[in-house]
Amino acid sequence: MHAWEKQGMENVFPGFSDFASLDEVGPIVLSHGDGIYVVDIDGKRYLDANSGLWNNVAGFNHQGLIDALCAQARRFPGYHSFFGRVADVTVELSKRLIGLSPFEDGKVYYTNSGSEANDTMVKMLWMINRARGEPERRKIITRHNAYHGVTIATASMTGKPYNAEFGLPLPGFLHADCPHFWRYGLPEESEEDFTQRMARNLEDLIEREGPETIAGMFAEPVQGAGGVIPPSKGYFQAIRPILRKYDIPLIADEVICGFGRLGEMWGSDVYDIEPDAIIASKCLTAGYYPMGAVILGEQLTAALMEASERFGEFPNGFTAAGSPLGSAVALKALDVIENEGLIDNVRALTPHFQERLGRFADHPHAGEVRGVGFMGAIEIVADKNTKAAFDSKVGISEKIANTALQNGLICRPLGASVVLAPPFIITRQEMEGMFDTLEKTIAEVFADVRS
Amino acid sequence: MHAWEKQGMENVFPGFSDFASLDEVGPIVLSHGDGIYVVDIDGKRYLDANSGLWNNVAGFNHQGLIDALCAQARRFPGYHSFFGRVADVTVELSKRLIGLSPFEDGKVYYTNSGSEANDTMVKMLWMINRARGEPERRKIITRHNAYHGVTIATASMTGKPYNAEFGLPLPGFLHADCPHFWRYGLPEESEEDFTQRMARNLEDLIEREGPETIAGMFAEPVQGAGGVIPPSKGYFQAIRPILRKYDIPLIADEVICGFGRLGEMWGSDVYDIEPDAIIASKCLTAGYYPMGAVILGEQLTAALMEASERFGEFPNGFTAAGSPLGSAVALKALDVIENEGLIDNVRALTPHFQERLGRFADHPHAGEVRGVGFMGAIEIVADKNTKAAFDSKVGISEKIANTALQNGLICRPLGASVVLAPPFIITRQEMEGMFDTLEKTIAEVFADVRS
Repeated sequence: MHAWEKQGMENVFPGFSDFASLDEVGPIVLSHGDGIYVVDIDGKRYLDANSGLWNNVAGFNHQGLIDALCAQARRFPGYHSFFGRVADVTVELSKRLIGLSPFEDGKVYYTNSGSEANDTMVKMLWMINRARGEPERRKIITRHNAYHGVTIATASMTGKPYNAEFGLPLPGFLHADCPHFWRYGLPEESEEDFTQRMARNLEDLIEREGPETIAGMFAEPVQGAGGVIPPSKGYFQAIRPILRKYDIPLIADEVICGFGRLGEMWGSDVYDIEPDAIIASKCLTAGYYPMGAVILGEQLTAALMEASERFGEFPNGFTAAGSPLGSAVALKALDVIENEGLIDNVRALTPHFQERLGRFADHPHAGEVRGVGFMGAIEIVADKNTKAAFDSKVGISEKIANTALQNGLICRPLGASVVLAPPFIITRQEMEGMFDTLEKTIAEVFADVRS
Repeated sequence: MHAWEKQGMENVFPGFSDFASLDEVGPIVLSHGDGIYVVDIDGKRYLDANSGLWNNVAGFNHQGLIDALCAQARRFPGYHSFFGRVADVTVELSKRLIGLSPFEDGKVYYTNSGSEANDTMVKMLWMINRARGEPERRKIITRHNAYHGVTIATASMTGKPYNAEFGLPLPGFLHADCPHFWRYGLPEESEEDFTQRMARNLEDLIEREGPETIAGMFAEPVQGAGGVIPPSKGYFQAIRPILRKYDIPLIADEVICGFGRLGEMWGSDVYDIEPDAIIASKCLTAGYYPMGAVILGEQLTAALMEASERFGEFPNGFTAAGSPLGSAVALKALDVIENEGLIDNVRALTPHFQERLGRFADHPHAGEVRGVGFMGAIEIVADKNTKAAFDSKVGISEKIANTALQNGLICRPLGASVVLAPPFIITRQEMEGMFDTLEKTIAEVFADVRS
């Protein structure tokens, strides 16, 4: 029996939890939150520099969100949205989302998670293509290091090596290059040339597979769980015409970037992506309710309506999706982000966040320090010149995260990177504390690693 | 533009909604609930004889559930359960679920829906088999008319014809026979012989595909969205030894049957199924929060722990799953069902429910009337002797459901059947009203169909 099982997880199967770390430090059982801090059952406080999982952007006890949630719970907590029945607040939320979206008009389809939303988007594309007489147009392009979810289909879209443990990806899920210039740029190659190479390789992939077999391409504006990887300069401008040429819809997976993380409502605004549909989740409810959404632009809405009409219905639905309670929480979360200062705070503190993050660049083991808005990563290397990583047995980013925990700071090890994505409500003073603790932590870890 | 779009669904993409019915009656926009009734924005009340989607078993404004939800929202609304961190109430819920389960010991893995739980269970089986050196053991057996969800993988498990619209099922998802004696029994065949044939056919399927390629079999105790189909007599007793013989785990999909629908905590209890894992959702939160759970018995827990340890982690997780808010709602829902009279009411009123349901058997167009516990279906036929269905263009079950709506009753058309699955809190008097309205509705519809 593991030590940590005795400490509270006897009957919980832990997902995405490093077993070595669990054996070393045990689980942390949390009882409540306080602003940007979570508090464990022994009263220890942790500044959560990752906003939970990018999503708890209004902190862990936001009174406005709690009040809105409880008010709707008293009015109408749970109902489905099948059979042409829908709650009034869900109608309202849908109008709001289309209004916020880059689309003139469109429709929203609800799910309980980003995984479900991406998975459903693939089904939508497949149904549209079958109705159009192109049943062979089924392949999905994503990118190495992408993260689109954990269902069997969305794990197949996710470009992380751990999916090999499940025998994934499934056939027909293709992975294009990751546009990470620092890591994948060739010696002497300029960033512009790198971007052009990414675009050429994408076109080659499409040509090799057969354009008539490609249903769509999904991309995060900034790759999140891949380790905070902004696109190389001009990347989306380079690939957009290629996708248009072959009539391949581009789906922006805005699960992490959407609703303010980059200082704009969408990552698609920041990078001028012009998507055909948007996948939303996470900040949509500020982490107070499970919700995902497929936001279809005009063309995909029309195509899916036509396909559904042909068949008589769109035969897909998640029991709890589009519920009145979730919709009311989302409406309030959007208010809080848009009108109650959260996105303004992201904009105001981004220069400071990026400046303090940038200071790590001088560290002898910081290979690359990168970020945009309230997303940042420090990629740890063994050798700064060769960009060589530490042996994975060292578990360097896990070491940093575990030491940070002891110091009361939650940051996230992602591959060899340490990632920061603070709540939108963080104050400048709290941000100083966050970076001070991380600096201290990294110093401690390297004192230990070197000794 | 459809008339119904003007009536409130402009920006909502409707799932599982019959477009013809939407054109005829428009959408229904709901504002709140009152006991077992939902109320639309014009104040019209509907008795929901389907408990929402089988799940709102405590009604639509249960004070105890609302209070528990709000209390936890004030304490700690949202957090993930990754990285060995977990909320105290989630630990508590997991102990409770294992205690309620048929398993001596085990672990619970949380998701946001039944779809995600079934999808994850498949990934678990695939990871276990790879770790055991049996990477080719991947095929999944379900049954015709089964419903296991709508993700690409779980839609592949679902045995409904509409999934052909998406080009599903994927390869490797096999569909065994549906053990519906009335529909599929041969002339002169006894129910016992039918059951033996079901079992032989299953064994033939396993042998034909190669037992070493089968990862697991999933089965609902009573098929729900297939149209309320209880297994033929002795079915699970006949197939269990076959699955054991070939070392194929049996997963009980208890999304509908679990937590009291059949008068026992699990459908597995009613039919003595002895599953290796249970998939739970729906009543787990009484429809007040999106939640699914994989409940692993001892053997699968050990196997998945071993596989995860080998790799270092179980690389799977849903952001909002296992949240403190959902866990507190589930704990309260289990209390309400188990200790506050709900399952007792199901037991007490089942004889009356089944007796009133049974009265429809005399109707000239009732092909079969079937049910167990608080689940019932009337399968409508054009000809009682030949069991021939009405032409699908007649949309007979949709007609009944649409007329019922006008009469203030929500019942569900599933194929040619009309399905009833009332909330567990329904009173005897409300039940009389429900059946009176349905009788009146069916009389109206057939007066119209015949004329």
